[in-house]
Amino acid sequence: MSDNLHNQLKIIGKSARAAARALGLASAADKSDALQRIADEIRSQSDAILKANAEDLENGKAKDLSAAMLDRLALNQDRIEGIASSIEAIAAMDDPVGLVEKEWEQPNGLSFSKVKIPIGVIGMIYESRPNVTADAGALCLKSGNACILRGGSEAFHSNQAIHRAIVSALQSSALPESSIQLIPTTDRSAVGHLLSGLDNTVDMIIPRGGKSLIARVQSDARVPVLAHLEGLCHSYVHTDANLDMAKEIVMNAKLRRTGVCGSTETLLVDAAIATKFLPQMIETLTKNGCEVRGDEATQSYHTSVKPATEDDYFTEYLAAIINVKIVDDLQAAIDHISHYGSGHTDAIITENQDAADYFHQAVDSAIVVHNASTQFADGGEFGFGAEIGISTGRLHARGPVGAEHLTTYKYLVHGQGHIRPK
Amino acid sequence: MSDNLHNQLKIIGKSARAAARALGLASAADKSDALQRIADEIRSQSDAILKANAEDLENGKAKDLSAAMLDRLALNQDRIEGIASSIEAIAAMDDPVGLVEKEWEQPNGLSFSKVKIPIGVIGMIYESRPNVTADAGALCLKSGNACILRGGSEAFHSNQAIHRAIVSALQSSALPESSIQLIPTTDRSAVGHLLSGLDNTVDMIIPRGGKSLIARVQSDARVPVLAHLEGLCHSYVHTDANLDMAKEIVMNAKLRRTGVCGSTETLLVDAAIATKFLPQMIETLTKNGCEVRGDEATQSYHTSVKPATEDDYFTEYLAAIINVKIVDDLQAAIDHISHYGSGHTDAIITENQDAADYFHQAVDSAIVVHNASTQFADGGEFGFGAEIGISTGRLHARGPVGAEHLTTYKYLVHGQGHIRPK
Repeated sequence: MSDNLHNQLKIIGKSARAAARALGLASAADKSDALQRIADEIRSQSDAILKANAEDLENGKAKDLSAAMLDRLALNQDRIEGIASSIEAIAAMDDPVGLVEKEWEQPNGLSFSKVKIPIGVIGMIYESRPNVTADAGALCLKSGNACILRGGSEAFHSNQAIHRAIVSALQSSALPESSIQLIPTTDRSAVGHLLSGLDNTVDMIIPRGGKSLIARVQSDARVPVLAHLEGLCHSYVHTDANLDMAKEIVMNAKLRRTGVCGSTETLLVDAAIATKFLPQMIETLTKNGCEVRGDEATQSYHTSVKPATEDDYFTEYLAAIINVKIVDDLQAAIDHISHYGSGHTDAIITENQDAADYFHQAVDSAIVVHNASTQFADGGEFGFGAEIGISTGRLHARGPVGAEHLTTYKYLVHGQGHIRPK
Repeated sequence: MSDNLHNQLKIIGKSARAAARALGLASAADKSDALQRIADEIRSQSDAILKANAEDLENGKAKDLSAAMLDRLALNQDRIEGIASSIEAIAAMDDPVGLVEKEWEQPNGLSFSKVKIPIGVIGMIYESRPNVTADAGALCLKSGNACILRGGSEAFHSNQAIHRAIVSALQSSALPESSIQLIPTTDRSAVGHLLSGLDNTVDMIIPRGGKSLIARVQSDARVPVLAHLEGLCHSYVHTDANLDMAKEIVMNAKLRRTGVCGSTETLLVDAAIATKFLPQMIETLTKNGCEVRGDEATQSYHTSVKPATEDDYFTEYLAAIINVKIVDDLQAAIDHISHYGSGHTDAIITENQDAADYFHQAVDSAIVVHNASTQFADGGEFGFGAEIGISTGRLHARGPVGAEHLTTYKYLVHGQGHIRPK
């Protein structure tokens, strides 16, 4: 059975590789056309998708999935329209492939260009939300990559139904049907095969899901991984902050949505303004249903504050809970972020440009924000159209990963009979 | 003993991490100054370096190292001057850190910049040539990265002596002494510890050496690897080639230096011009001491041609041996390269611009050359000043890796109190 699965996956890998070669040479127009067909097909197959989704939801309820999980899983006409229009937005974006990043000539007359090209075959492993099937497929196709998708078992039928729509659209397009493939089984060993690279047919793995998924992928993958780890984000209110602005930003950074990776988990406040700022800030947070955990000094500002443990400062709550810590100065704030942060998104609120500049330079996170909410950590807000995730690794791509980041490059060298001297 | 080594390495990792934080904030001037001091110190400690090198050479002879290995290992005043002036060239290059790659503003007034920053701590594992100790250290420092170097046991004393010069230079500079560290033991288990990432203190491993080293690194590393694999390069003579130019380019691509990764291993020739081109080409190659292996058709053109096996087309000879294969057309040449090549460097020789353009687009190698020798595959020839290797991976960096490729980026977001709408 597992051998059988392995063989099936090898065929998937081989046809992905063949599709990747064709996609790498496909015109921007052909790719946009295929994406538009996918959007149309998802709309016209919405009944079948909703029926499949109902089956997943029923199974989910039987398995006692949490309300939050069920909500992430659930589709309706609005959400399907959202999926289709997101694909149209990706279709409308500039094509990153073939873009000349740089051109130059050497003194010997040899000329060089550095050109963006697709990565090849991308393996995508994700959980719950079925829209990822369409989003990831569309972003990979836009950037000229073939992809092999492996969704979570809880969304198995929804993913299959969305994928069926994608396949019929591809069949009517100029692009290979196997440009976007979905592993058609919930067998867990399929993930292991995918992580091993399917006989060198997978160039990169992108995991998107909980900590345990990412950890498994990072430990087992034999191909490069573009991982989206946790977002342990900080908002730091500097001595020279506009305190009204600070309050508004902190409320948004923590509570706009608590379940997103760009939500702030820890508020750092300069000691010099703590007395002026914190009592009202904590009052407003508490009133809006946010639990506040703090160091001793913070506890003295409001009776509702619970003690924060060392572990709390390392915790991505993804819930209406915030840590507060009073720091001596800018450097202490940066040191805290460097020690406890996850290199995702961190913000300073200050009217002092020098402090903001130093914070920007010294905080080693993918996204460093000045006078704005950490919740802007999102490919759409960056103008990338859509994102496949937010990378917290340091190599290849950091921060929101859009179509343009799913590329690599090659050098084209143009000579006129140049030979290299001894 | 191994526990002891592990602890020693952990301390190296910790101080590298601390150095990386300081280097990330160091000014371009301080880095250039430190590099100049290193060059000076290497010149003034040349006697000590040569003495250490003599010890390595003596050990190497006792261990029956090949003449080629001994030559790679050997230093003299000229080579030491070469090392020092190469560091000066790196010092003189533009500083890549802080470079704004892109700036833009979103309609809501939030502004973004994408800025080049160092990767962090780079572990470098290499064999034989002691100049790599200086080159790699200098390139990492230029790009704001701390590095942990692990040279081959055969160059142990030479590497230590060069590293001593580097350390005295750093001590007199504004940068941390631990910016460039060398693992001070030949114990092989040190490599394993380094590959495991030394408690999350190593951000990337760069191996540079033979196939078995690269294979071990790729299978054991728990951190991202920027690998330089083999260069199985092709030169393809198209129907519309200028045949005199083709002959000159092929001679250079194969024989200028046979031991470099950019040397051509296989010559592809269009069937339509084989009769006109091959007899003289083979004659010239043979006369110049190059063994020619070919398919049956090629064998018919010259008595000296030996039969080429399937394995031969997969072999990086790094020697005066060349495979010749006659192909039907451009597409057949591209298919051959795609099947047998290593994605390093491949060239087409043709006067037909359409053919050249299609070759450039369809050949999926890091470097694709038109009408020039594959031996231009070299960071210096690209204008990168110096290279730490040539990456044959697809992610992060491809082709020659100079200081600018040893960086990653972060996004700086500038708001005026921006909060994200629901």
